[in-house]
Amino acid sequence: MAYIRTFGEIPGNPEGTPYVSRKALRLAGLHAHNQNGISGTEDEGADAIVLNGGYSDDRDEGDIIIYTGHGGQEDRRQVADQELIEGNAGLARSQMERLPVRVIRGYKAKSKFSPTKGYRYDGLYRVVRHWFKKRDDGFRVLQFRLEKITDAETLLDRPQDIGADDPELKSATADPVSRTERVTRQLNRKASVVRNIKKWHNNVCQVCHTTIELPGGPASEVAHIQGLGEPHNGPDREENALCLCPNDHLRFDYGAIYLTDDLKVIDAKTGQAIGALRTHPKHSIDLRYVRQHRSYWTK
Amino acid sequence: MAYIRTFGEIPGNPEGTPYVSRKALRLAGLHAHNQNGISGTEDEGADAIVLNGGYSDDRDEGDIIIYTGHGGQEDRRQVADQELIEGNAGLARSQMERLPVRVIRGYKAKSKFSPTKGYRYDGLYRVVRHWFKKRDDGFRVLQFRLEKITDAETLLDRPQDIGADDPELKSATADPVSRTERVTRQLNRKASVVRNIKKWHNNVCQVCHTTIELPGGPASEVAHIQGLGEPHNGPDREENALCLCPNDHLRFDYGAIYLTDDLKVIDAKTGQAIGALRTHPKHSIDLRYVRQHRSYWTK
Repeated sequence: MAYIRTFGEIPGNPEGTPYVSRKALRLAGLHAHNQNGISGTEDEGADAIVLNGGYSDDRDEGDIIIYTGHGGQEDRRQVADQELIEGNAGLARSQMERLPVRVIRGYKAKSKFSPTKGYRYDGLYRVVRHWFKKRDDGFRVLQFRLEKITDAETLLDRPQDIGADDPELKSATADPVSRTERVTRQLNRKASVVRNIKKWHNNVCQVCHTTIELPGGPASEVAHIQGLGEPHNGPDREENALCLCPNDHLRFDYGAIYLTDDLKVIDAKTGQAIGALRTHPKHSIDLRYVRQHRSYWTK
Repeated sequence: MAYIRTFGEIPGNPEGTPYVSRKALRLAGLHAHNQNGISGTEDEGADAIVLNGGYSDDRDEGDIIIYTGHGGQEDRRQVADQELIEGNAGLARSQMERLPVRVIRGYKAKSKFSPTKGYRYDGLYRVVRHWFKKRDDGFRVLQFRLEKITDAETLLDRPQDIGADDPELKSATADPVSRTERVTRQLNRKASVVRNIKKWHNNVCQVCHTTIELPGGPASEVAHIQGLGEPHNGPDREENALCLCPNDHLRFDYGAIYLTDDLKVIDAKTGQAIGALRTHPKHSIDLRYVRQHRSYWTK
């Protein structure tokens, strides 16, 4: 049975669900593989990882995980550097796109957060950073910092004062920077809109026609033409979205540039066209949203 | 007595504190003016607003506020368009820099959230968006959407299921996009570091030497060379910071570019220098952090 990559929680498999084997995880749609730690590809991102003691470089602090990438091992010994490819590039992609990653803990990990037997799905995490680490044996491995996406219910177990020191940073050597837990209201944007827009435009900015090339692959942002949420209530649809580089995303959201009905890009300061919006046959743009955005920024 | 602009809570003035007059607010250091609604300038950002019924375009929904800018009025009647200058540009600056804004409600506002007499400090909000609105009388006014920065304690009053519909969006006409409350751990970065770096470099990107020009003023981002927080624990200091455009910030954080000891900018893909880092005499960069960042991305 082909594995269909799904991001986020799998219906019928809430946090805390136990599984007897890797195969059971795969059949439930939680993870693509029977052996690999990372379920993911460079293009699609990574939807799940298994923490099962494969790397001594891993660190598990519950809500914070430092996870080591895959590759470069033979017979469980590191014999080569890891590269930012395959599942590793998938986790980097999930970081870029802020895709949620299912964390599954296995019995071999021997941390206090691991199950004593079998596997357990432990909720959704976000990849917040990645980097290469040079090990004592001379080989480079990739590392990923994952942070749990805590919901309001979970928080009730451990309220924390604003400004309180973060326990995770107690061990920091110099100038530790504290963290504060804040509740933010995140718009539940559709992953399909982001995926389609980026795919159609191949991560090329529709305004300046450049692509941000990162070691893990090309990057871009998906902007909404008419803003989501109150008071604009623009819809989360491809017809209301643009593929932009971060610089032009900022310019568009702050009204430094806007679009004409024939999709010319106008510099708001001079009122002059600075170019034409890159288009794609599959990506139709609804002019109602273009006009709405323009009305905010022109007289 | 000169007003010293401070962002965030003023010691001794917790949320809920009442004040008898605008003068009392000013003397306590909460708001710069006796009359203006906005306390702020284009360069520094806005640190506080007073919601006191000055504009019929205002909307107060408690945690969400649609606030109208200032200007264009004579004898309380709109006689001209508002412009993105002075306090209005200050609120746009606070949005760009994610500066917290103190919200003070006054007795004249007549909303269910306003005090019946005097003024009350009602906590910290973030400006999340701004735009021009064309009123029925033909004049353009600026509007700002502010959202309350809710701390963990406040949340306890209203737990919400992940995925639950957002009550504020119930009135939306088409394709409402739901929001989810999530707890995020935000690093408490020093405003002084951000301010110094941007001032020294005048918002010019140290890599590509461009500035993002927005209607509310120039914009840039402050990046840390050695990352903050575990496991890198870089310090939140000017010596560990760079002034970058959002595109180069992304490239730097993902290792697409790194620096040599003589501050050349290297393209990681080719290993070739693509330019020299812009420097400023007041901004000394500590090479320890440069080397640490480079070690993550080179063999």
